[in-house]
Amino acid sequence: MEAFKVIQIKESVFADNNRQADRIREELRRTGTFLLNLMSSPGSGKTSTVLRTIAALQNELRMGIIEADIDSDVDASAVARTGTPVLQLHTGGMCHMDANMTRQGLDELSSDPLDLVILENIGNLLCPAEFDTGAVKNAMILSVPEGDDKPLKYPLMFSKVDVLLINKIDTLAMFDFDLQAVSQRVRKLNPEILILPISAKTGEGIQAWVDWLRQSVQQWKQTQ
Amino acid sequence: MEAFKVIQIKESVFADNNRQADRIREELRRTGTFLLNLMSSPGSGKTSTVLRTIAALQNELRMGIIEADIDSDVDASAVARTGTPVLQLHTGGMCHMDANMTRQGLDELSSDPLDLVILENIGNLLCPAEFDTGAVKNAMILSVPEGDDKPLKYPLMFSKVDVLLINKIDTLAMFDFDLQAVSQRVRKLNPEILILPISAKTGEGIQAWVDWLRQSVQQWKQTQ
Repeated sequence: MEAFKVIQIKESVFADNNRQADRIREELRRTGTFLLNLMSSPGSGKTSTVLRTIAALQNELRMGIIEADIDSDVDASAVARTGTPVLQLHTGGMCHMDANMTRQGLDELSSDPLDLVILENIGNLLCPAEFDTGAVKNAMILSVPEGDDKPLKYPLMFSKVDVLLINKIDTLAMFDFDLQAVSQRVRKLNPEILILPISAKTGEGIQAWVDWLRQSVQQWKQTQ
Repeated sequence: MEAFKVIQIKESVFADNNRQADRIREELRRTGTFLLNLMSSPGSGKTSTVLRTIAALQNELRMGIIEADIDSDVDASAVARTGTPVLQLHTGGMCHMDANMTRQGLDELSSDPLDLVILENIGNLLCPAEFDTGAVKNAMILSVPEGDDKPLKYPLMFSKVDVLLINKIDTLAMFDFDLQAVSQRVRKLNPEILILPISAKTGEGIQAWVDWLRQSVQQWKQTQ
């Protein structure tokens, strides 16, 4: 009676993860599906951000969500309540998603064509940064309570993503978090990155994020 | 002119990490040194908690701190300012500490005898839970902004530790975080766990944590 499927995925047997990832992108190009890989620490607000994104875009785009977790399906349950197709992947202890695992997710998610799929990766700032999932774009969330020193400690993740969402900005007054310092640290690693401050709780800044996403989906469809 | 050493560590070549870990504990028993392995997500407040612990105990115990990070030495710099011996380990991308890596840290930390060494593990709720570091006790921090669903998503970590510090309780009013629910979820996985709510920022709850630590060090010395 679950409103979504739960599957156990297996790690890639392909040595060449990058080749697999490129193949996924080729297929996504043909079907006009934009895949976003969303990464962060545990508890930065990936699911809340996904829920805000669904609320803003579900009437104009055909969306689907892949939730990757070691265990549990609390995130998929939350998404399922919106009526958006969602799949829960259990990685059985693995700390990242790779291209083959993503393919298993895409294959199971929906038989109908989709415009936008969001892959909510495992909560981890390390291993997920090392594997190309086949996504068209990569985004990460850093939340204010985590601190503004994170780009110094996890440089690979910050250097790999197209967009950085700085979440929980409604709590800026509670924490020592210097938005300007964090932006400078991130741009040093990744000059092209788009940095968007948001609050998934209050909705602040979500419009700019959704606008970027809508535009990225349209641009991707034009490459078909 | 750095006040601390930075070393690059290599992953264990020993298949039997557990045997290595037991050997470390035997040596620690002989020298009367209590090793605490402290784990958490990025930004949960490991370093702030270590700094509070140093302030409370540095006059009564001979302490040393091992900071493990992928990169950067911001944490070791903060600790070095207290005058406590500190060593920065760079794991070169590895997402956890194992027993052999810990030994390299212990060997380099200090030639003087120490009562209490805190190993601040890599910020990650996954891989560190899988490796016995040789520590006498294991503790983890969950911070309020991360959310009360984390025991459901990262059960291994919560089931492996002796103590759970729930940090940033000064921000409870800002977040949907049910302390009772989290305690119930954790105790289901780990009935023996000690759960201590703290705020490394305001100092609330630190006394109980420090009392537990002092007592644990004394008990460990009695097993010599």
